[in-house]
Amino acid sequence: MGGDRAPAEVVRGALAALAPNREILLVGFPDQIERELHACGTAPSVALRVVPSAQVVAMDDPPSVAVRRKRDSSMAVALDMVKRGAADGAVSMGNSGAMMALAMLTLGRIQGIERPAIATVFPTLSGGRTVLLDAGANVDCDPENLLQFALMGREFARTVLNRPDPSVGILSIGEEAGKGNALAKEACALISALNVPFVGNIEGRQLYSDAADVVVCDGFTGNVTLKVAEGTADFVQDLVRKELTYGPWRALLGLLMRPVFSSVHRKTNYDQYGGAPLLGVSGVCVIGHGRSNARAVANAISEAHTAIKNGLVQRIATVVKPPAPVEA
Amino acid sequence: MGGDRAPAEVVRGALAALAPNREILLVGFPDQIERELHACGTAPSVALRVVPSAQVVAMDDPPSVAVRRKRDSSMAVALDMVKRGAADGAVSMGNSGAMMALAMLTLGRIQGIERPAIATVFPTLSGGRTVLLDAGANVDCDPENLLQFALMGREFARTVLNRPDPSVGILSIGEEAGKGNALAKEACALISALNVPFVGNIEGRQLYSDAADVVVCDGFTGNVTLKVAEGTADFVQDLVRKELTYGPWRALLGLLMRPVFSSVHRKTNYDQYGGAPLLGVSGVCVIGHGRSNARAVANAISEAHTAIKNGLVQRIATVVKPPAPVEA
Repeated sequence: MGGDRAPAEVVRGALAALAPNREILLVGFPDQIERELHACGTAPSVALRVVPSAQVVAMDDPPSVAVRRKRDSSMAVALDMVKRGAADGAVSMGNSGAMMALAMLTLGRIQGIERPAIATVFPTLSGGRTVLLDAGANVDCDPENLLQFALMGREFARTVLNRPDPSVGILSIGEEAGKGNALAKEACALISALNVPFVGNIEGRQLYSDAADVVVCDGFTGNVTLKVAEGTADFVQDLVRKELTYGPWRALLGLLMRPVFSSVHRKTNYDQYGGAPLLGVSGVCVIGHGRSNARAVANAISEAHTAIKNGLVQRIATVVKPPAPVEA
Repeated sequence: MGGDRAPAEVVRGALAALAPNREILLVGFPDQIERELHACGTAPSVALRVVPSAQVVAMDDPPSVAVRRKRDSSMAVALDMVKRGAADGAVSMGNSGAMMALAMLTLGRIQGIERPAIATVFPTLSGGRTVLLDAGANVDCDPENLLQFALMGREFARTVLNRPDPSVGILSIGEEAGKGNALAKEACALISALNVPFVGNIEGRQLYSDAADVVVCDGFTGNVTLKVAEGTADFVQDLVRKELTYGPWRALLGLLMRPVFSSVHRKTNYDQYGGAPLLGVSGVCVIGHGRSNARAVANAISEAHTAIKNGLVQRIATVVKPPAPVEA
């Protein structure tokens, strides 16, 4: 029921994500969901069941409202099924703050994890991927949080992106080790002491250059980075399109360029990459963009499926041991 | 002498910036500068003098080295001339950390200013500008710093960008007032109490949308934002160019698109906007990108000239009163 285009695009995405050995449960208002299925020329089946819920978390509901007053929302019901083992993972395109709060409350944290984090994926020019986390779950972080983000991000890169031994960097301002704010410098000291490939500071532009497989930062910086990247990608594409409105010759060129623009748009459109996983909770939870279309929904479902199949939650639990008490 | 293309592009930029009532002093190794002038078919004159200095701050010198061991560098000599009143402003394409440190040491802060800040300008889709500060002078900031950045940024937008009553926003993660990290929320409370047009939280993508004339943040977030924006703009343009290498038909399309790419590149190329002013020091100081070409150098000089002519330093001194002691 969540997202700007629900339930139509969500239902279409679920249909596109159907595959052998994959069972998808659509949680929400049964009449609306069934109407959408009908519009797609199909109906509920064993592989695509409808699970009723009586409420919907609105995109502008504060997380507290979702948690306290909407215990029968589609999000809450889906997460509760994960908790009970009736489902293996939950995917939502809805209110991300509410989904995070409900997931933490319902699923709880993996033992040893202080702060779950949202991971997001940047495309690189070579066709690779860079995982950035935290992309917005925790606005204020300490160095120990960033260390855990590094470990969780590595397990995500390993299980979902197929990297054997992912390298880690810290998003900072200057490639030299001495640069950055207090948080980045302290996290640098902590992470460099781990037994993982560590590349040190990563600058914003290096997100696109395969300089590190996993880049960590606090959720404020990460979310600003994500929004600036999305905004800049749209801005550049808008500028090019605007240039192609200046006269009939330019308009013709614009027509010829359409396939190029579609291809670039696919690569810079973060929807492509499906959803952003909330790492560190005791269950697979993937949160998609509110604007997600059917393709993005299908990708988010596939991503959740890969995470489940490869035991992402169990792997995170194994690598993150509870931190030793700090001696004064 | 500073920047990746000095002294050739700097000398060419100075020549391009020559105008009536404008006197430019080229500080550095006289033989190198005169050779460049000669290569451009000219020679030193009253409007374009050469001022000798015996040292150069390297791009990778730590600021401490520039300050302690290179007191006769071109930067130090130029700033000393500003301090003595022998010049009205200083412009450098060199090591920005060193230039900031030397400017703070030599010129000192304007009375009442706690932390000088680097301002940078983002283009908007409508052809407007958004001033973002701090873009990297102060990695860790308190809310009072952001309040001063707002006041300084407004004077810059007023005097250099010709805005009569610039609006102020805070770079944050979500447009609602309650969102953001502790710093953003506290700065929001402080700035909203000022008698200036305040638009609240600004998200990364709104830097391109005329949502606010001036956007403030700490120098870590600001520098990450700048680098992510530059990196993303380059990434999108690289993706488009890569698409246009797939076969002869695409290559032809690439040729036809060249004027469009140049135009877009000019608009997304931050060099275009000349340099970034260091606001809050007692003198006009503009720091350009190390990669600056002659056009960017000329723009930086013109920007410094406008700031001088319109009394930017005096205006900042007037609006920023020393902060009242905080009552517990």
